[in-house]
Amino acid sequence: MMKQVPVGVSARHIHLSQEHVEKLFGAGYQLTEMKPLSQPGQFASNETVEVVGTKGSFPKVRILGPARSRTQLEISRTDAFSIGVNPPVRESGNIAGTPGITIKGPAGEVTIEEGVIVAARHIHFHTSDAEKWNIADKQLLKVRLGGERGMVLENVVARVSPDFALDMHIDTDEANAAGAKTGDMAEIVE
Amino acid sequence: MMKQVPVGVSARHIHLSQEHVEKLFGAGYQLTEMKPLSQPGQFASNETVEVVGTKGSFPKVRILGPARSRTQLEISRTDAFSIGVNPPVRESGNIAGTPGITIKGPAGEVTIEEGVIVAARHIHFHTSDAEKWNIADKQLLKVRLGGERGMVLENVVARVSPDFALDMHIDTDEANAAGAKTGDMAEIVE
Repeated sequence: MMKQVPVGVSARHIHLSQEHVEKLFGAGYQLTEMKPLSQPGQFASNETVEVVGTKGSFPKVRILGPARSRTQLEISRTDAFSIGVNPPVRESGNIAGTPGITIKGPAGEVTIEEGVIVAARHIHFHTSDAEKWNIADKQLLKVRLGGERGMVLENVVARVSPDFALDMHIDTDEANAAGAKTGDMAEIVE
Repeated sequence: MMKQVPVGVSARHIHLSQEHVEKLFGAGYQLTEMKPLSQPGQFASNETVEVVGTKGSFPKVRILGPARSRTQLEISRTDAFSIGVNPPVRESGNIAGTPGITIKGPAGEVTIEEGVIVAARHIHFHTSDAEKWNIADKQLLKVRLGGERGMVLENVVARVSPDFALDMHIDTDEANAAGAKTGDMAEIVE
């Protein structure tokens, strides 16, 4: 059985806590939805912030909503070199010991002590997909992206939940290295 | 037998014809060596040029010497998006039908009609390495880069010559996607 998964390429983005949304955009501010993402309930917001590293900044980093418990900036390794920050590869939410960054919005700025990561590539599985393919939460998979720059990615983290929709998330370095784009199909090979 | 190859990460760079060296730096100008590269006789020059795309420019692109028969700019896919040019993945020297670009130096500027590529990942083999491992010129190999972001790259082009030293060349997108750096070891797996 071919285990095929659609690819979603994640550009640099940020998740904000509601506390930080209000510090950056004003008291009581709520993120507004620009468009839905592949995962149910998640959205790209109309709002952006500036993030400022030691060597440069990105003036318009998209905020993904809704607000989360902790603020987290996800950038590629290329981005990291570009602005001068040295984040580890981490799963989303696992930010202990990661570098901080300064975030600027129209109503204020915030400097977080930790929260910058290079996101570990991963696949969201709905529980039913995982059961069908006998894949466990946190399992490390090998996944092939085909084409001229074809490659087999190792250590692709399986994330299983009844709240997820089947989608493989890679960052722009991985997408560019593989010549892949959102909507391409990847194959779980092991 | 393990077929291990050192990795060299190629940042964006340009090769210039002697005609273009002189247009950009002045009549009779000769590139000067800053440091030798892994391939015998090749060097990073002290000189840089600006390359200008439709959406942006890179102010200091390193020239690799010596001068070649044709001018060729090698950039990553990330670079390509950044400055607004859409080059194909090509082997060095195969520039027919590729996009052009404007190049600026201290003494003038040149607009080439073609010559911008994303370099196809490749391994330089000395003839003796290729014979020992039974690898033919132009053969497409699968090569594994290990570690946290481990991956197996397909379609790695073998280039065999008595003038070459054993070295695998990948670009910054590939290096960043794999968490690899110059001096790491890769393994030919097929």
